[in-house]
Order: sequence, then structure tokens, then C-alpha cells
Amino acid sequence: MSTRRLGEMTTVEAAAAVVDSPVVLLPAGAFEQHGPGLPLATDLIRAEAVCDRVAEALGGTAVVGPSLPVGVSPHHLAFAGTISLTTTTFATLVREYVDGLYRHGWRRICVVTGHGGNDATLATVAQDLLAARPDLQFAWSPLTTLAADVVAAAGPPEVSGHSGQAETAQMLAVAPHLVHTDRLAAGTTRLAELDAFGALARRRGGPRLTAPYDRLSGNGVLGDPRRADPEHGEAIVAAIVDRITDFVTAWLRA
Amino acid sequence: MSTRRLGEMTTVEAAAAVVDSPVVLLPAGAFEQHGPGLPLATDLIRAEAVCDRVAEALGGTAVVGPSLPVGVSPHHLAFAGTISLTTTTFATLVREYVDGLYRHGWRRICVVTGHGGNDATLATVAQDLLAARPDLQFAWSPLTTLAADVVAAAGPPEVSGHSGQAETAQMLAVAPHLVHTDRLAAGTTRLAELDAFGALARRRGGPRLTAPYDRLSGNGVLGDPRRADPEHGEAIVAAIVDRITDFVTAWLRA
Amino acid sequence: MSTRRLGEMTTVEAAAAVVDSPVVLLPAGAFEQHGPGLPLATDLIRAEAVCDRVAEALGGTAVVGPSLPVGVSPHHLAFAGTISLTTTTFATLVREYVDGLYRHGWRRICVVTGHGGNDATLATVAQDLLAARPDLQFAWSPLTTLAADVVAAAGPPEVSGHSGQAETAQMLAVAPHLVHTDRLAAGTTRLAELDAFGALARRRGGPRLTAPYDRLSGNGVLGDPRRADPEHGEAIVAAIVDRITDFVTAWLRA
Amino acid sequence: MSTRRLGEMTTVEAAAAVVDSPVVLLPAGAFEQHGPGLPLATDLIRAEAVCDRVAEALGGTAVVGPSLPVGVSPHHLAFAGTISLTTTTFATLVREYVDGLYRHGWRRICVVTGHGGNDATLATVAQDLLAARPDLQFAWSPLTTLAADVVAAAGPPEVSGHSGQAETAQMLAVAPHLVHTDRLAAGTTRLAELDAFGALARRRGGPRLTAPYDRLSGNGVLGDPRRADPEHGEAIVAAIVDRITDFVTAWLRA
Amino acid sequence: MSTRRLGEMTTVEAAAAVVDSPVVLLPAGAFEQHGPGLPLATDLIRAEAVCDRVAEALGGTAVVGPSLPVGVSPHHLAFAGTISLTTTTFATLVREYVDGLYRHGWRRICVVTGHGGNDATLATVAQDLLAARPDLQFAWSPLTTLAADVVAAAGPPEVSGHSGQAETAQMLAVAPHLVHTDRLAAGTTRLAELDAFGALARRRGGPRLTAPYDRLSGNGVLGDPRRADPEHGEAIVAAIVDRITDFVTAWLRA
Amino acid sequence: MSTRRLGEMTTVEAAAAVVDSPVVLLPAGAFEQHGPGLPLATDLIRAEAVCDRVAEALGGTAVVGPSLPVGVSPHHLAFAGTISLTTTTFATLVREYVDGLYRHGWRRICVVTGHGGNDATLATVAQDLLAARPDLQFAWSPLTTLAADVVAAAGPPEVSGHSGQAETAQMLAVAPHLVHTDRLAAGTTRLAELDAFGALARRRGGPRLTAPYDRLSGNGVLGDPRRADPEHGEAIVAAIVDRITDFVTAWLRA
Repeated sequence: MSTRRLGEMTTVEAAAAVVDSPVVLLPAGAFEQHGPGLPLATDLIRAEAVCDRVAEALGGTAVVGPSLPVGVSPHHLAFAGTISLTTTTFATLVREYVDGLYRHGWRRICVVTGHGGNDATLATVAQDLLAARPDLQFAWSPLTTLAADVVAAAGPPEVSGHSGQAETAQMLAVAPHLVHTDRLAAGTTRLAELDAFGALARRRGGPRLTAPYDRLSGNGVLGDPRRADPEHGEAIVAAIVDRITDFVTAWLRA
Repeated sequence: MSTRRLGEMTTVEAAAAVVDSPVVLLPAGAFEQHGPGLPLATDLIRAEAVCDRVAEALGGTAVVGPSLPVGVSPHHLAFAGTISLTTTTFATLVREYVDGLYRHGWRRICVVTGHGGNDATLATVAQDLLAARPDLQFAWSPLTTLAADVVAAAGPPEVSGHSGQAETAQMLAVAPHLVHTDRLAAGTTRLAELDAFGALARRRGGPRLTAPYDRLSGNGVLGDPRRADPEHGEAIVAAIVDRITDFVTAWLRA
Repeated sequence: MSTRRLGEMTTVEAAAAVVDSPVVLLPAGAFEQHGPGLPLATDLIRAEAVCDRVAEALGGTAVVGPSLPVGVSPHHLAFAGTISLTTTTFATLVREYVDGLYRHGWRRICVVTGHGGNDATLATVAQDLLAARPDLQFAWSPLTTLAADVVAAAGPPEVSGHSGQAETAQMLAVAPHLVHTDRLAAGTTRLAELDAFGALARRRGGPRLTAPYDRLSGNGVLGDPRRADPEHGEAIVAAIVDRITDFVTAWLRA
Repeated sequence: MSTRRLGEMTTVEAAAAVVDSPVVLLPAGAFEQHGPGLPLATDLIRAEAVCDRVAEALGGTAVVGPSLPVGVSPHHLAFAGTISLTTTTFATLVREYVDGLYRHGWRRICVVTGHGGNDATLATVAQDLLAARPDLQFAWSPLTTLAADVVAAAGPPEVSGHSGQAETAQMLAVAPHLVHTDRLAAGTTRLAELDAFGALARRRGGPRLTAPYDRLSGNGVLGDPRRADPEHGEAIVAAIVDRITDFVTAWLRA
Repeated sequence: MSTRRLGEMTTVEAAAAVVDSPVVLLPAGAFEQHGPGLPLATDLIRAEAVCDRVAEALGGTAVVGPSLPVGVSPHHLAFAGTISLTTTTFATLVREYVDGLYRHGWRRICVVTGHGGNDATLATVAQDLLAARPDLQFAWSPLTTLAADVVAAAGPPEVSGHSGQAETAQMLAVAPHLVHTDRLAAGTTRLAELDAFGALARRRGGPRLTAPYDRLSGNGVLGDPRRADPEHGEAIVAAIVDRITDFVTAWLRA
Repeated sequence: MSTRRLGEMTTVEAAAAVVDSPVVLLPAGAFEQHGPGLPLATDLIRAEAVCDRVAEALGGTAVVGPSLPVGVSPHHLAFAGTISLTTTTFATLVREYVDGLYRHGWRRICVVTGHGGNDATLATVAQDLLAARPDLQFAWSPLTTLAADVVAAAGPPEVSGHSGQAETAQMLAVAPHLVHTDRLAAGTTRLAELDAFGALARRRGGPRLTAPYDRLSGNGVLGDPRRADPEHGEAIVAAIVDRITDFVTAWLRA
């Protein structure tokens, strides 16, 4: 069976893919701290894994384009190793990937981001493309929030999220060799652990306040990754893959 | 009683406000179609009204800075009169307003946007400011979604939103002289009226697809503005004002 | 009688205005110190008042588009409350307003600026548009200098200008409730009060040197606003309105 | 006697000039049509000649820095050979020349422009530098308008200016070998020759409208260059040199 | 033994690496046609393989940072699948990777590029960093040209290079599963096959002319990849690794 | 005989040149230290001289366009008088010169740079133009390296280059009045004089490391300019002129 990754195809295969595989998935990650137990590339690893599975599930109507290994992570810069693009640069990068694919004939492109910090920028790219390339359809997708129900089923603590149970579980499902289970440590798990500023930044339903993660958690973790297990991770990943696959299937018929 | 609008203050009063009013609210709008019954400036009008009320409710701890009359509206460009900034320009504009206020000593700035199309760009500004001005606290707030419960209480149709009941009601509450009640007309109210692409763009919980409004509604309206009444509008506005006021109050203590 | 403000029109009315009102006036202000007696928004207030009157005088052949509330004011940044855009951002903003109007069919656009600090940037926009949009006619107009004869008739002091007699008089004519007549105070009125650098910056007919206003005046005022009266202000405004109206009338025939 | 041109100095001499010659003059030109008798580089040639004379007259307190051979000339692009920078690029170029000189210690820099089309951009650079480099003094100077009295004394026709009598006379004074006196031809000399649009663009005292030169003159000339003579040109150049020299002398004392 | 890839490290390990591994290697590729037998990602694959080996050879004094999967490839855009960044975007991307690493304390960063089309942009980044970050040492390295002697030993045809024998051999050494040996086909191998423009673009020692690859080769290949064998590829890779390792060793002592 | 310099032509002559002289040569220099004996403008002076001679040799098929007097020289900024453009600005400048010439009909443009620090940026411009203006042919040429054989024939010392024998000789050939032969002084001539970092930066065949010149030479000179003589300079210049002339001749036939 042939690859679904465009980067592994020859130009001759790519020319055929423009016709046979009208959707391109672009995996986007972050290069940022994920606490003491997960690697810096966690978000890209999950995004690539999801893209590969979605392309597989679609049976050839989509290909996986080049990755975006670094994303928008200014809130993690206090933690060693984090690299962050400005939102302008990340947007430009997505735009130029899109421009290249557009030139060869693709008109449906979906960025799959493993990192929530990329969401806002991707939404701005979608807006600018409406005016700049009206005949292109640009979509983007987060990962974990697509499986909110599966995540919630595990009964996460009051504060949970970055590098917590759900994200660690996904890594145990897709890249277990990169998880240091012996070093996993709980981060902030209760609102009462946050100072007033941090609590305000975590409030839902009101004005938005963005906090750097060093204000939210001493080790960069929200929630308790020690509770993660690979079966739950597999369930989360499977749900994400299903929902993106459903979306693309509907998209191809629209 | 003195004004809460910085633009109506002298420079001498502004110097005092830096000390006495540590929060600046910046009203952001859009210059875009709002169907056959509402004016192009609807979003700015609502944002300014909310800012004035919040500043009043806070009793002097916040001032209202200069407005951003034009926002990010590429999805409405097919409708006459719509002007849209690129996301880069809107972001730069917010940044330079912030830079000016920062220079005079303000460290808490909140953009209040009447237009959801500005949300993504405001979120990117918040991210870039984390790295560029770590000692600044930048917040932003939407309007209608803060009062989602009050909006839902009116039992909106299956499809509802832009220029629909809730937005029209707010205008009846804050600027009734600019609402042409005789021309209000229902737009798209049921998912079945949308084509497959439009339906996909309105789906919640999956990948995001941004659709131009001329794909979603013939007259630019989602929902039925004829059902709007000023009392409901007043309830929505009051809820928004309360929730932003609460946020700022907590912020000042954080 | 219907409004001349595009922001108060619906999209349906805007579509008609493209045909019936081929000229768009864009009011531009500044958000800057105007001494101890005038508000920060003085320049926008005057520009909007002039635009409204011009549109009225033209009887429907022009509409007033969205405002530019903040302009280019680096020379006033030492005074509290001043916000300044870089010239690049102000130019981009004007360009994107113009692009939107152009898209809907307008080909004659005139920015009316209450702030002289915007003049140079507006002139650069005009130049760049010559190459970028050859079928667009872009004009811009200052305010007070159009009525230089009326201003001179009042016998201003040797040094006069920003926040002085003529500007204060205009505010007494168009927004008297925002003028603190009890706090008006003379600023620099004689060349001899300036240091050598300030005097050089005020010299006419030679090389141009731009001075920050804190080098020119302790309270930010040039001239004596206490001499202002509303009748003179009305005469200045009327002259400005007449001359812009004459220009637009000729333009529509050109 | 040593050179006043920085480009002809060694780095050792430049180090001494930072101390001994605190003013740098930067000649700016245009690369644009000057009618059938004058060369494309006319404006740079005049600016360099003036700078050399000013530096000479100042006796060593100023040096002449690198030239800016191409300026802002979109209004001449319909005529062969014209090259125009966008206003943004011209501004950036000036800024980077200034940044380099600043780095070595210079704090007084004056651009001398032979081309009026550069004026607006130079004024924006001056504004942006106020905020960006508060301890730098940046000036700029036109040429011909400094000698308006000398120009007027020759009794120019109703329409006069670009490539007309005064400019041609200057070229006869400073670079007569580049003037094709046999090909000089009158351009537009009376307002009645202009169409309504052109006439409006030439109106003084009202709103500003920028016209491309092909709307103003068939051969690119305003006025009658055949009336030019080198003595008048010398008088104009001498007046310009005197006035810039006076300005710099005062500047050095300020 | 622990990983040398920063992306596989936790933030805690990254903090240690700043101290223990003062050099960061950044692999840069291209996403471009490599003829009928090699994949689009060929250049990144080779660059990553070399970086891994160099880091291994250095025994812990260097780590491998995030990849740059897409490079500057406008000359290949006529071939399906090629994506190219503008030189400005590629430069900005490198700069922001560098900025992030710098922030955490790294001062020696080397981009290892598998794609010669990135060389010029990397050289401009190096220049701009001299002025912007004088205490940073930025290096960059090509691959194949470091082993020019090993390449030459195989007696390549008159025209050879992109996707030819040496590049294919390297892929056979580092990623044989991605080489379609059955589809490898000779491209242009003799100067006589080029048209006059193509021949001029390939001339050495004179002015540089950049040709799109569709002017140089029908299948995008220069040389004959069928002659490639894995042993030669291994010799080339080993030479490259040795020479970069030697360089870094000397750098750490400088 | 008429001039080959476009700047000395009228617009009427330029219109003819588009047809008769299909190649435009653009001389690029630097404004940077050249040791104690050569002027800051050395690179521009040599580039202009070469362009004039090439245009002459071509007998009218090429014209010389406007100069680029300042280039990319961050490595020389520690020496007084050096002005450096960022690579982005230099690239934009070249692009806008090219855009202007393109507009008038020229399709073959060659930048001739006297300064090696401009090479990388020119190569990036060439790449971006491939995508942006596919019907334009853009070339660029260095000077001294075209005559490497003639330079080598003089037996230069182990370290040689900037402001050394070959460059000084060229200046003695084309602008002897600007060479201070009495002040010429040897700079670094042996690798052993360099520290480990400088030696690494001068290594050939491995990774590239860019060093500021104050790390390489106390007086900014590499090599020994005292050995220069005008005959050798003339031979170098003649070789450069011949090779560019040959290239253009071939280009015109391609």
C-alpha cells in the first residue's frame, strides 16, 4: 500500500495525488515544555499520528503534507527548550504552505494542530484567505477538544489540561517510548492552588486573560499525568480521528 | 460627574486617570453588513455602549479609550458597505493603541469587541504581548457570548446569530433610533436551509471551516430579528455589563 | 431626511449610496494632548463635524465613512493620554479603508483630517495609490489651513497654532460642552519664548526640523486659547465647509 | 583641501569627521522623466551640487553622506525610464542610512532632496524618528522652494514647475553638459490647457488631489524651459545654498 | 543512552542541555521535486540523518533542534508537490528558531541544510545576526559540497547535481526504503542537452543567472541517479559528518 | 557618441533604449571601511567603472541604470563611517529598481556588485523573482572573483582579500586620485595572526561562519595593499569587463 505522506512521494506521485487526493492535511505542533515527563515535540507527534490515521481511514482521498514543527508558544517561554514563533510568522508560514499546494491545484486544505496555542492564528489565516483566495476552502482542527466527551469520562481534576492526563494518555497511545512514566508528576490540579491572577485567567465565560504558564504551574503541568493510561489515550485518539474523518468525508461531498 | 471617556478628557485629566483609573477599556467594532434593518456600525455602537456602562459601574477605576471602528470582516465583503481590515493590520492597530497607553503608565488594558470576527486577532495580540511586554496585562472580551444564558432564554431558532434576535434586541436597547424595525426580515433560521458547505461551516465540535456569509444567508442575517424586543436587549446588555464589571473588579484585586 | 453617515446606513442603503453618492469622506483625527482646556479627541470631533456639514451641503452626493480616531502624533507623546500610530500603520489603515470602499465601487475618496500631523502620511498614501490603483481618485484635506484668511483676521499672536485661538474657537462652535473655558491658558505666544532649537523648528521657508511639543510649550499650547469665541469658530468652520464643498462639487464634474 | 564627501574619505578620516563635522547632509534625488531636454537623474545632480556647496560654505562642520539616487515618483511612471520607490521603501532606506550614521555618533542629519515627491516621505521619517530616536535631530530640505523669491523674479508662466524654467536653469548652472538646449520644449504653461481634473490637482489652498503627470502635460514639462538661462540658475542655486548654510549654522548653535 | 534530539527531551533535560550541549544543530530541508525516484522530503531526510550522526559523533556537546521541513525552492515550482517559502519567510523562521534558543542561553547555532537553495538565505541571516545579536555565533553548512572530493571520485557526468548520482546515493545510505530504484531515470547529463539559456545558467566563474529547473531538465534530474550505490552514499555521508564534526569541535575550542 | 548611463538620458532617449538596449546593468556598492588608504565608496566606484566599460564594450546593447550606493556591510560596522542596509532592505531596493525597469519593458537586468557582502542578498532576489516575475531574466555578478586567475598571478599572501592588493590595484586603475598610497598599510596576511574563531571563519570547504572584521584585522585590511600597482589593477578590471561582456553577449543570444 502506498504512503499517504506527500513528503514520501515523488513528484510524479504528487501529480497524481492532486487528482486522486483532493484534501491535504497539514500537521502543526509546538516546540514547548510539556512538564517533566513528556518531550518538547509532544504536540507535533500527536498531530502527525492523527493525520496519518485520518488519511488512512479516508482510503486515499487525503494526503498528509509537510509539518509545522514549531508553533505559537509565548506562554511557555519561561520553561527551557520552548521555541515560539510570533503569530505573524506562524500565519505567514501556513499561508506559504497553502500557496504552494494551491499552485499545484489543491483547493481543500486542513491544518491539524496538536497545540491549542495555534488556534487563534489559524483562525486569522482562515479569515485572510477568504478575501485573498475565495476559491480555496481552508479548514483547521484542534485535537483534544474534539474528544471532550472521552476526556471528561475519565473524571479529570478541577484544573486539567496542558501535559495532564488526556495529553499524556495520547502520548502513551502514539509514542510510548517518549514518555518518561517514572518522572510524571502532578501539576496544578485545584483552582485554590492558583493565585488570583491565575484563577482569573482560567475563568470560563467572561473576558479572556492570557497568563504565562509559570504563573499557573510550577512544573508546567495542569492536571495529573500520572493517572494517564494508554487505553484511554487510544480512545481519545480514535475519537479525534473519527471526527476529523467524518468532517473530511462530508467536506468532499459539499 | 466627570466623563469616563479618555477622548473627552484633557491631558491634565488623563495624567490623573493613569493613577486613579488603572484599567483602560477599548471598544472595538466592525464596519459591516447587518442585514436590511441594522446599521453598518452596529458592533461599534454596542461595544461603546457597554464600555460606557462598565466604566460607570466601576465608579472611576476604568476609563474608555479610543475606539476601533473597523474590524476583521472578510466574510461579509460580498455585502455593500462592508470594510474589512486584514488581521495583521487590526492586530497592529491594537498594538499601537496599547503601546501608547503603556507609555503613559497603564498596565491593564481590555479590548471590548462587539464583533466576533475580531476574536481570533485579539487572541493573537494577547499572545504576542506576553513575550513583548511581560509586565502588561492584556484582556479582551466579546459581548453577546457573555450573556449566552440570557440569549438562550428567548428560545432562538435552530440557526441564529449575526443580525438576529439577540443582536437586534441589543440595538433596540442602546440605539433604537438606528433600527429600522419595519425593514427587519428573517434570514436563515434552519440548518436545512443551508447547503452542505454552509452546514459544515456551522457544525460545532469538529474542525473549523470559515464560510463567507453570502453562502449562509441571502440577506446576511442568521436568525429572526423580528422577534427582538428592547426589554430582552436590555437584559442582554445588563448581563454583559455585569460580567465585564465583575471581571475588572477581580482583576484590580489580582 | 436620511443620514449621510455610512455607518448609520444598512447594507441595502449602502448599495444605493455607491450609485447616488459617488464621494466618500473619511474623518481622521488624533488622540493627543490639546492643552489644559480641550479634550484629547479634539481633532476627530472637528473633522467629523466638518464632514457631516459638507455631506449635508452637498445634498446627497457624498457620504461620511468610518472615522480614524487615532493619528500620527509622536510630537505630543510627552503629554499624558496621547496615543500615536506609526506613519506606516496610519497609512496602512487608510489604505485598507480605501480598499474596502473601492471593492464596493467607490472611486472618489477624500480623507478630511483635523490633525496636521497626518498630512505627510496622507500625501504618501496618495502617491502609493497612484501606482497601485490608477483608476481611483484619492484626495485629502486639512481643516484650519483652508480657512487661513479667517484665522488671520483675528490677529493671532506671533506664535499660534496647536490648541490656540483658532482651534479652541472651532471647538466652541462644534462641541462647546467639551471645552473647559475656565481652564484655558495661554501657551507659547512669542518666538522669544522659544529656545534656539524651538525657534529653528518654527522657522518658515528653510529646511524642516520637527520638534517635540514639550520643547515648544510647557502646557502643550501654541497661542492663546482664552481669546477664542464661538462666533469666530463658526466662521472658521463655515469657511472650511464651503471650501471642501466647492472642491467636491468641482471634483464631481471633473 | 580635503574632501567634504564621506564616501571619498577613509574610515580613519570618517572617525575624525564624527567629531569635527557634526552635521551630515544626505543628497536625495529621483530617477524620473524631466521632459525632452533634461536627464532622468536631474534631481540627484542638483541635490549633490547643493550639498557640496553647502559643505564647502560651512568650512568643515558638515560632511556629505551617501546619495539616495532613486526617490518617490509614481506620478511620472507613464514616462519611460522613471523608476519609483514605494514610500515605505524610501522611508526605510533613509532610516537605515540614519541608523548607520547614528551608530558612529552623528546626531544631526539633514536630507537635501532635489525632488519634491520625496517631501512627504521625509516628513514621515522625521515623525517616526521623534519617537524612535529622541536624541537624534533629523532635518530635511527641499531645493527650489527655498529660493521661491528668486524663481518668482523671473516671471514664470501661470503653470510652471517640473522641468520648467527654474529647474532647467539650475541644471544649466550645475551640469550644463547634460542639458539638451536644442530639445527643450514648453510644456503646459496655462491653466486653461489642463482638463478639469488637472486644474483641480493644481488648485492651491483647498483639498489635495494628486495627479499623474501624463494628465498634466503631454511632454512631462510644466512651464517653459526654453526661457532658462545659467545666470538665473546660478542665482537660484546660490540662494538655496545660502539658506541651507544659514540653517545649519543656526542648528549647530541650538 | 539518551537522545540528542531536543524535541525528544523534556524541558528538564533541555535545561541541562543548555549547559552540557552548547551547540544546537538545526536540520533544514526542502519540500520539492527530486525526480521520478526520490521523495519530496529528500533534503530534510538527509539533513536530519547528518545532524543525528554529528550529534552522536560529538558525544553530547551538541543537540539537534527542530527541523525546517520547507525551504526556498522557487526553481522547482513547475514540478508537482513542490512548496517554496519566500526567502523572507525562510529567513524569519530561522531567526525565530534562533531567538528562542538564544533566550534559553544557547550562543552557538548551526543550520545544516540538505538543500542548496537555502544557502543564500542562510547567508543573509548570518549577516543580519552580526548586527542584531553580536554575542551569538551563527553558522550554517551545506551537505554534498562538503564531500566534493568523494563525489568527484565517482566520475560524474558533465552535468550532474540535483537528484543525480550523489544525492541518490546518500538516500540509499540513509533512507533506502524511500528510493524507488526501479523508477530512477537519467536527467540532463551533457551541456549539449541544454538550450543556450540553460547552458548560461550552468556556466561557472561568471555572472550568476538562476534558471527554473524545467528549463534545465525534463524530469527534474541533473545527472544519472541509476549509477548510485549505497556504499558511495555512505562514503559521502560519512565525509560530511566528519567535516561538520571537525568544525564543531574546533568551534567549541574557539 | 551618446551616453550609456540611463540617468544621463532624457525620457525620450530612455524610450528608445528599451528597444535598442535590452540589457540594464545596475552598479551596486557598499559604504564601508576600506582600511587607512581607500575611500568608503570604493566598491561603488569600482562597480560603476566596470559597468561603464561593459556598456561601452557592448556597443549600445546595454545601458547602465541607477546605482545602489549602500549595501550589506554588518561585518564592518565597528569601523567608522560604515553604513549597512539590512538584507531585507537591500533586497527590496533591488526589487523596486527592477520593478520600474520591468514596467518600461526591460526583461534582462544584471546587478554588478563591487561588494561581496551583497552576493547572498542578490541571490535571494534572483530566487524570489523566479516566482514573482517568471518572464524576467535577472542576473548578478561579483567583480574580483571573476578575475581570480589574474589576482592569483600576483602571488597574494596567505590571507588576502578586503582592501588588499587586488582591490587596491583596481582603485589605482579606475580612481587613483582617491587612493592614499602613503597611508596604505598591511593588514592580516597570515592565518597564524588570526585567533581560533577568525581562523575558523576563514576556513574553506566546511560550514560557514561569518565573522565581524574587527575580529579578523586591526585596521580592517586583509592582505597587503602596499604591493598593489595600477597595471595589475588594470589587468584585473579588464578581465572582469571581458567576462561580463562575454556573458551579456551570450545572454542576448539565449
